[in-house]
Amino acid sequence: MKQQRAVRTRGALIRSAAETFERCGYVQAKLAEISSSAGVSAGALHFHFANKAAVAAAVETAAAVALRGAVRAVQTPGMNALQRLTAASYAIAEELRRDVVARAGLHLSCRTPRRTGPDLRQEWHACVRRLLAAAEAEGLLADHVRPEDVSVSITAATTGLEVLGGADPCWFTPGALARFWHFVLPCLAKPEVLAALDPAGATALSLPSAR
Amino acid sequence: MKQQRAVRTRGALIRSAAETFERCGYVQAKLAEISSSAGVSAGALHFHFANKAAVAAAVETAAAVALRGAVRAVQTPGMNALQRLTAASYAIAEELRRDVVARAGLHLSCRTPRRTGPDLRQEWHACVRRLLAAAEAEGLLADHVRPEDVSVSITAATTGLEVLGGADPCWFTPGALARFWHFVLPCLAKPEVLAALDPAGATALSLPSAR
Repeated sequence: MKQQRAVRTRGALIRSAAETFERCGYVQAKLAEISSSAGVSAGALHFHFANKAAVAAAVETAAAVALRGAVRAVQTPGMNALQRLTAASYAIAEELRRDVVARAGLHLSCRTPRRTGPDLRQEWHACVRRLLAAAEAEGLLADHVRPEDVSVSITAATTGLEVLGGADPCWFTPGALARFWHFVLPCLAKPEVLAALDPAGATALSLPSAR
Repeated sequence: MKQQRAVRTRGALIRSAAETFERCGYVQAKLAEISSSAGVSAGALHFHFANKAAVAAAVETAAAVALRGAVRAVQTPGMNALQRLTAASYAIAEELRRDVVARAGLHLSCRTPRRTGPDLRQEWHACVRRLLAAAEAEGLLADHVRPEDVSVSITAATTGLEVLGGADPCWFTPGALARFWHFVLPCLAKPEVLAALDPAGATALSLPSAR
């Protein structure tokens, strides 16, 4: 019972910290604000976390868990590797849209100097490379396509949409992702594969289009 | 004579501020550090700038001038709109690589909350849209291509390369840009246009490739 309460308190502190980091930035965030927004005492915060860096590390870890979980949840059996890739991009965008912990943790993992936790953008790059290698092995890629060129391009474009979305939310929406996939999938997939590239991207790719 | 010295001092302060913002971040940068690194007194700094926000605004403005100039310098007569677009992307990458004021100003223009200066990423998006509209008017785009999908994709990918390059310089190099253009130009340009897409991209596209 006592332990359940401790888990709840820790979760509330992580969420409150994420909101505070997102609003004020890591440097200007105050521990007192994090604890009071979570409805707990300064002592309770210090029971869980030694200092601000430890709180930030916990936010990063929680974000990594949430984002990995979101990607795993859409990798259903029977999907080919390109369907997995597009589905993963939409899942990450949705998780970042609805979860302040995922957003704040992603930004901390990229921005804090001398971080020690996971670099979530590099992790996404590794995921893109893995899925493109699988797509090549599954014979889905058009003949002229070089997976390394494509993985750099896809990682860069999705990262760019996320960053631009930080300043203006209309950049990191299913609609913006759909524009991107609309443009690149025909360059990437064999024509006969493209026709079947529906399940994961279906709703996305049929969203209002550019013209 | 006195005025020339004032112009030089102002330039030295802007450069020193850019270095300090890049090293410490805007929030933690100290005016005393900026003036002493520029080799001038605190009084001299205050003669030119009322406060840290004014210094940052001057860095942003100088970055905008440098980046616009870099793009203009590569837009030589006789180039078609797609050549202008690729050339602009390489020019921006090179300017950001060699000029700390351009880098710091770009980051300030995107990150400082409640900024009033130019948003340089939005400005790049406008430039991409303009050049793609010109490419369409010049009959360079493949038939299935929707310029708005492409401008979102190109803006996102180039922004992503720049952001990823902030953490790991190998992301924002001519080689990484070449991988991107290698992948997207064949999806974008009419086949007969692609063959001629050399002058601007020539050196870039013949850089060491992925395999």
